[in-house]
This record gives sequence, structure tokens and C-alpha cells, in this order.
Amino acid sequence: MSVAATLPAVRPLDATASRAAAQRQAQLLKPPGALGRLEELAVWMAGVTATPRPDPRARIVVAAADHGVTAQGVSAYPQALTAQMLAAFDAGHAAIAVLAGHSQAALVLVDAGVIDPPAVPAVPAGLPAPSADLSREPALTVEQLERALELGRSLAAQAADDGVHLLLGGEMGIGNTTPAACVAAALTGASPAAVAGRGTGLDDAGLERKQAVIARALAVHAGTLNDPLEVLRRLGGGELAVLCGLALGAGEHGLGYVCDGVIATAAVAVAVSLQPDLRPRLLAAHRSTEPAHGLMLEWLGLDPLLDLGLRLGEGTGAAAALLLVAAACRLHDGMATFAEAGVG
Amino acid sequence: MSVAATLPAVRPLDATASRAAAQRQAQLLKPPGALGRLEELAVWMAGVTATPRPDPRARIVVAAADHGVTAQGVSAYPQALTAQMLAAFDAGHAAIAVLAGHSQAALVLVDAGVIDPPAVPAVPAGLPAPSADLSREPALTVEQLERALELGRSLAAQAADDGVHLLLGGEMGIGNTTPAACVAAALTGASPAAVAGRGTGLDDAGLERKQAVIARALAVHAGTLNDPLEVLRRLGGGELAVLCGLALGAGEHGLGYVCDGVIATAAVAVAVSLQPDLRPRLLAAHRSTEPAHGLMLEWLGLDPLLDLGLRLGEGTGAAAALLLVAAACRLHDGMATFAEAGVG
Repeated sequence: MSVAATLPAVRPLDATASRAAAQRQAQLLKPPGALGRLEELAVWMAGVTATPRPDPRARIVVAAADHGVTAQGVSAYPQALTAQMLAAFDAGHAAIAVLAGHSQAALVLVDAGVIDPPAVPAVPAGLPAPSADLSREPALTVEQLERALELGRSLAAQAADDGVHLLLGGEMGIGNTTPAACVAAALTGASPAAVAGRGTGLDDAGLERKQAVIARALAVHAGTLNDPLEVLRRLGGGELAVLCGLALGAGEHGLGYVCDGVIATAAVAVAVSLQPDLRPRLLAAHRSTEPAHGLMLEWLGLDPLLDLGLRLGEGTGAAAALLLVAAACRLHDGMATFAEAGVG
Repeated sequence: MSVAATLPAVRPLDATASRAAAQRQAQLLKPPGALGRLEELAVWMAGVTATPRPDPRARIVVAAADHGVTAQGVSAYPQALTAQMLAAFDAGHAAIAVLAGHSQAALVLVDAGVIDPPAVPAVPAGLPAPSADLSREPALTVEQLERALELGRSLAAQAADDGVHLLLGGEMGIGNTTPAACVAAALTGASPAAVAGRGTGLDDAGLERKQAVIARALAVHAGTLNDPLEVLRRLGGGELAVLCGLALGAGEHGLGYVCDGVIATAAVAVAVSLQPDLRPRLLAAHRSTEPAHGLMLEWLGLDPLLDLGLRLGEGTGAAAALLLVAAACRLHDGMATFAEAGVG
């Protein structure tokens, strides 16, 4: 595929800024290390932004798409909800819209292949069709995949131009824990039973059906899954591809990227497979209740910041983590050193 | 002791408001339960505040005190830092002052027995002396204990009068992980080796010394430790007693109480021993790196919200948790129901 040939290089973290931030943390009015991960977050943000006292300006990008695999009965909700939720994001009704306002992060909506999309100001992905049924054929065409990846990368470029430091990727798509689980199984080698979760609320019969669909999909596409882009194209979907491009673009343009739940993390896992240098720019926001999420976080070597039993997606876990990143940066900037405070 | 006879009753959570909040959560624009602990926090706050759509108005009370047991070499820092840090809280230099500003929570400072306290507007506790060396004699006199408990209760009453819903108790006191560990051992039956941690940064020799001091203290006061108030008086200290009173007062006046780290949680453990009905009004903010903290949280049956490797005290973990409580309440109030959003 042509996309692989043009994969962007990842800008490394700024070691000078990281070092300066770590030195500042060692001088602040507390025993060294006593603020634990809040110190690590500030030092990480310094490296990400190349600024010793970083400002966590953030943008949330929520990509929505529909999935042909819903025909196999893998979701507890009807497909029409994807379009309705996209409208609800725009209207401020949904969780991620409330959290975006609460954390003063801009919210960008992406139509990555929604059936009958609402007339809201969402960025169009050039993906008018939902994904095909991945249990029978590739989810996306080569062209759909390329367009979606490009769109994600261009959204990262735009964010960098706008002075954003941190991208949070969220998603909405009825049925999309199934592609995420398939991608997780293909990349990590885990079994269908290990990656299948209840998603938005499957009962036992639904869960068994989902496992069987995942197993069938892996069998249908077997032999093509050594290439991460083929994994994404055959087993993913529009929002996964946009988020994969967004994460790659974050690396390319020197932003930090906050991984949300199982779907967003599946997209990131593909991005890291393509470009391992991306890993230092990633923050795992939380551990969701979907089993494939924990598997992928471990596979990525990421230690999630929160464990709140979330399983909503939309970027809500990433937005919750952003509250701690902002607090960490505020502490880093606002606390006095021992010398400044005349203590000790 | 006279204090026990006047222990206040705890106001139970408001079941009607909790039920209304839980019903609202079930109707909001998400699969039921998909926001995990953020849903639980909103429902809990509804019960705490007797309001179906609660507002998390919070106040942070930081009590500072000195400890005679520092003569035994149980801290990596000199005792004079307690007074200096009290000044730094007032000046806005310290972590908790930064977080209080960040989360828009008022910060109340209490002198609970600081040597040479600074001239800052701290509430005086009527405890002009630091605690005595608990490894040789009771840390507090009966009068000191009673005054400190009363002060804590009166601060809770004042908060309730001021329309506060949530109290966060923090502390500062060089050497105070030793009394906290002693209280933890006395209440839970754990061994000195199990409760002793490195505090602000003890080396191996310091840790061994601390274990021996804890063992000596438990031996000196053996036979008197069936009474939680005697545990607090003999093995505690001024800030532990104020925070114990504050937690009891939160129960009495119908507030929620957020438990911070090992010292604040030791104070809460005494309060719950005296008044088990307090438990539903408690939120465990985080799990610190001090081993006695995890032991007490388990003993209290509290599941901490965060695990960030914090070990600073001051109320910083509670303030970090407050960010999530505020987000949970904002989601609870700001999200639309399926019906309101016209979805489904």
C-alpha cells in the first residue's frame, strides 16, 4: 500500500525541556517524587511541548463511523444511534461535549463514514460509506483507508498550527468494539474469547455471538494480517483509521496524544506498529472495562492513569485524564521552589 | 473520657435524592453504567447533599502540628519545616494552595500544635504545644485531645453554615507518618513492619529505626488501645485529632468527607471506630505509597478513586479527587437524557 511509504517521522520529545522540568520538580516545595505521577505528567508535557513550564492546551477530536458488521448482531444498540450521537455531540448533549466544556478543550467532530449524517458542522472524511462487514470482506477500501489516515494527519497539522499541545482522540460508532477487538487480536495474538467484551451492554448470548464473529473475521482475513495497515483496513473502520492518522500526525507535528478506550487504543496500536517512535508521545488515559483494552495497553507498554470502570468511549476517559494533566501543569508552574519560599 | 459520651449522630445519606440521581443516570445519553465511578460519584454526592443534581462546593482544611516523636529520628526533614510550610500554604507557595486555587476550593489552615507558628491567618486550635513523644508517653493530654476534636467539629459546622457540601482534610507535620502508622497498627492489628513506610524519604536505616519506634510505642501503650479515643490521644497528634473531629463533624452536619493520605486516613479510621455510621459519607481519594494507607483503606472498606503514587499529604490527593467529583457532577447535571436529546 502507498500509505506506508509516506509514513511521517515522529518528532522526539525535547530532552532539554524534560531535563529542565525534572530539575524544577526536584526543587519544588515537596520531597522529591512526592507528587508521583503528577510530577511525571508535568515532565512529560515539558518534553512534548519543548517548554520547561508547559501549558496543556488540548483539543478533542471525536470521529464517528458506522460499521457493516452490526448486521451480525454484535451491538445492543441500533445503528441509527451513530448519527444521532454525532448530532448530540454538536448540541452539547453528550458526555464528551460536557467534559470538553468543563475542561475548556475545543471539540472537533469528524464524520468518518456515518450513515445519514446529521447536518452539523462535522469535518467530512470523504468516507460517505460505512465500513463493509469485516466478518465477510475488508472493512475499508484502499482509498477509504488512505483518505481517513490523511484526514487524521491533517487534523493534527491543523491543531499544531493552532497552538494545541495535546490531542485527545475519541470515537462513536455503534458496533465498533468488534473491529477494535479484531484489531487487538490481530496485533497481539490474543484469542477471540480474550478480546471480546460486552461493549455497550451485550448479554451472554450476544457476547458468544460477538466472539464467533471475531473468530470468523480473523479466519476470513488470515494470511494478510502481518501488515498493520491491512489489519486496520480489513478489520478496522472509518473512525479507527482517522484516529490512527491523528495519532501519527500528533507524532509528526510534535504534539502529545492521549489514548482513550478500547477503540481509540486499537487505532493507536496500529499507529505504533507502523511507527514505534510514537510511543513516547502517548499517554494512556485510563483502563476501560473492555478486556481488549487492558491487553493492548500492556502490549503497548502504557500504564493507564485512571481506572474508573469507564466504557463509554467518545474520548471521555481521555478528557477525565486531561483534568489531571492540567492540574499537574498547574502545580509544576504554580508551586514555589524551596529557595523561593524561603523554606528549609 | 468525656468526649465519647457526646459523640454526634451521623446524618444518613438522603435515599430519595440518591434514588433520583440514579434514575437520572439511567436516562442520560449513554449505556447505563458506562461512566463507571463517575456515575457513582454523582449519585453519592446527591445522597450527601440531599439534592438530585448536586453541586460539589468544597472546602479544604489543612491542619498542621509538630510531634515530639521526631526526637527519635523518624523523619528525613527537620521539625522547623512544619511552621515554614504553614506559612507556605498561606502564601500560596505549596502544592495544596495551588490545587485549591485550581479547583476553586477555599483553603482553611489550622494550627493544631505547631512550634513557633508563623503569623498567618490560621485557625488556632488551643493546642500551643506539639505532641509529646508517643514512644515514651501519651502524645496528647485529655484536654488537648478534647479541644482538637471540638475544633474539628466546629470547622465542619462552620462549613455547613457556609453552604459547603464536601470537606477535604489535609495535614502537615514533620514526623507525622509515625503516629499515623501507630494508629493504623493499633486499629487494624497490623505489625510495625507492615505499617512503617519511608514517609518523606527515609533510607533503610531510618526505616528500621521507625519500625522500632512504632514497636516501642505500641508496647508502651499496650493495654489501653481498645478505646479508639485513647489510640488517638496516646499515638496520634494535634492534626490527627483535628481531622478526626472534622470527619465526625462532616457526618454530624451532613457533609461529604474526602479522605486524603495515610495521616488523614488514620484520623478517619479513628472517627469510624467511634462512629461507624460515618462510612457512607466518606470518599477515599487515592492510594498513597505508604503501606499503612492501603491497610487502613481495606480495613475501612473504601476503594480509592486514584492511584497516582502520591505521598505528599497536605490534602493533595483529596484535591486531585475533587477534580473528578466536580467533573462527575458536571456530567450528571449537564448531559441530556435520551428523551431530551431525541436519541433512540
